[in-house]
Amino acid sequence: MPAPTPATSATPARPVRRRAGRPTAAVLDQGGITTAALELIGTKGYNGLTMAALARSLGVAPSALYNHVSSKDDVLILLMDHLAAMVDVSAFGSEPWESAVRRWAWSYRDVFSEHTPLIPIIAVLPVANAPKTLAMYESVTAGFREAGFPEDRIISAIVALEAFVFGAAYDVTAPDDIFDAGSLASQVPNFTAAVDRLALEQHDRPTDVAFSLGLEALISGFGALRA
Amino acid sequence: MPAPTPATSATPARPVRRRAGRPTAAVLDQGGITTAALELIGTKGYNGLTMAALARSLGVAPSALYNHVSSKDDVLILLMDHLAAMVDVSAFGSEPWESAVRRWAWSYRDVFSEHTPLIPIIAVLPVANAPKTLAMYESVTAGFREAGFPEDRIISAIVALEAFVFGAAYDVTAPDDIFDAGSLASQVPNFTAAVDRLALEQHDRPTDVAFSLGLEALISGFGALRA
Repeated sequence: MPAPTPATSATPARPVRRRAGRPTAAVLDQGGITTAALELIGTKGYNGLTMAALARSLGVAPSALYNHVSSKDDVLILLMDHLAAMVDVSAFGSEPWESAVRRWAWSYRDVFSEHTPLIPIIAVLPVANAPKTLAMYESVTAGFREAGFPEDRIISAIVALEAFVFGAAYDVTAPDDIFDAGSLASQVPNFTAAVDRLALEQHDRPTDVAFSLGLEALISGFGALRA
Repeated sequence: MPAPTPATSATPARPVRRRAGRPTAAVLDQGGITTAALELIGTKGYNGLTMAALARSLGVAPSALYNHVSSKDDVLILLMDHLAAMVDVSAFGSEPWESAVRRWAWSYRDVFSEHTPLIPIIAVLPVANAPKTLAMYESVTAGFREAGFPEDRIISAIVALEAFVFGAAYDVTAPDDIFDAGSLASQVPNFTAAVDRLALEQHDRPTDVAFSLGLEALISGFGALRA
């Protein structure tokens, strides 16, 4: 006879409701904690993520949560790793360096554009103890080395590309009229003409056009550093 | 006889304490509201900026504050304009395009690295009703046009540069050990070697080296688009 389905599934889709009686550790694995933390931030913003609120949404006592993550910092590392694992580094080592950087950067931007409240945290979060984040960096670094990129510039290039990616992720979420000068348009004629011209000529999403323009400049400029 | 010094000075250095009795409109001009809002965000984070807290820190009733700014959005526009006015666009029109972009971008990054809690807001805030922000964009746009930059690419190039600037502003505030892999170092040998190599060879601040590397690539790539 098969054993009853264990309460701890590997990656529960969503947190369970609080059950009557003693709290259960049903979703107290890393996947469950990550999912619950992302939902909290999605509904209440980053400041809504507290250990107390997280325990509540998981239907457990805070003490039970602390058996799995020792602090909010641990939760942040789980979140960073969760997002890093969604970023596509598969082209490093299998495709030309330019294509690999391109696929990595677009994918990285897309992932973070869905999670902009986490950017201020993750942009400055140490990577120690974050195995999936480190695995992403390892793939990218190895790809740069194999492509003949000078070793002492690799980290700086990655930091620059990431800066561009984080900023561009915000731009994905900007309102369409962000550059509409409104009643002040006549006072800024050059700017207004350029904004109007962009609107006339644009076929793709403006945010994608800007991202592509910047990314191709970075790839071209960094490519010139390769041996 | 000179009139008594008016209670409303143009740009009071700091908000006054709440006085006994009826609230006074002492610092209820745009400069005073801006200063008080920046102090609130500095001490309590962006979520600490509410109209009620702002009125309290200015020592006035909320109704008095609402006589000057109709909503929190108005306050955000004041903050955006305050920061935009600190960004150096003076080289556009007087120096070569490359130098002007360089001075603008470094200055822009430095200003926002001191105000990272505002980046998520300002990166997506419409510029309508923000005269100083629009003035910054007008100077930059005019500089790009005069340098022979194709008009239909100017806004995209500015958006890309700003994305890089916003992301890089976070990097300025990152801890020195952000890329220390700690106990996982042996599992990410390429990354660890590159991080160690950077530490060995670095003379300037790593964040400045990365910013310079990315900015020069953007300037070079965008420069190639000029007529």
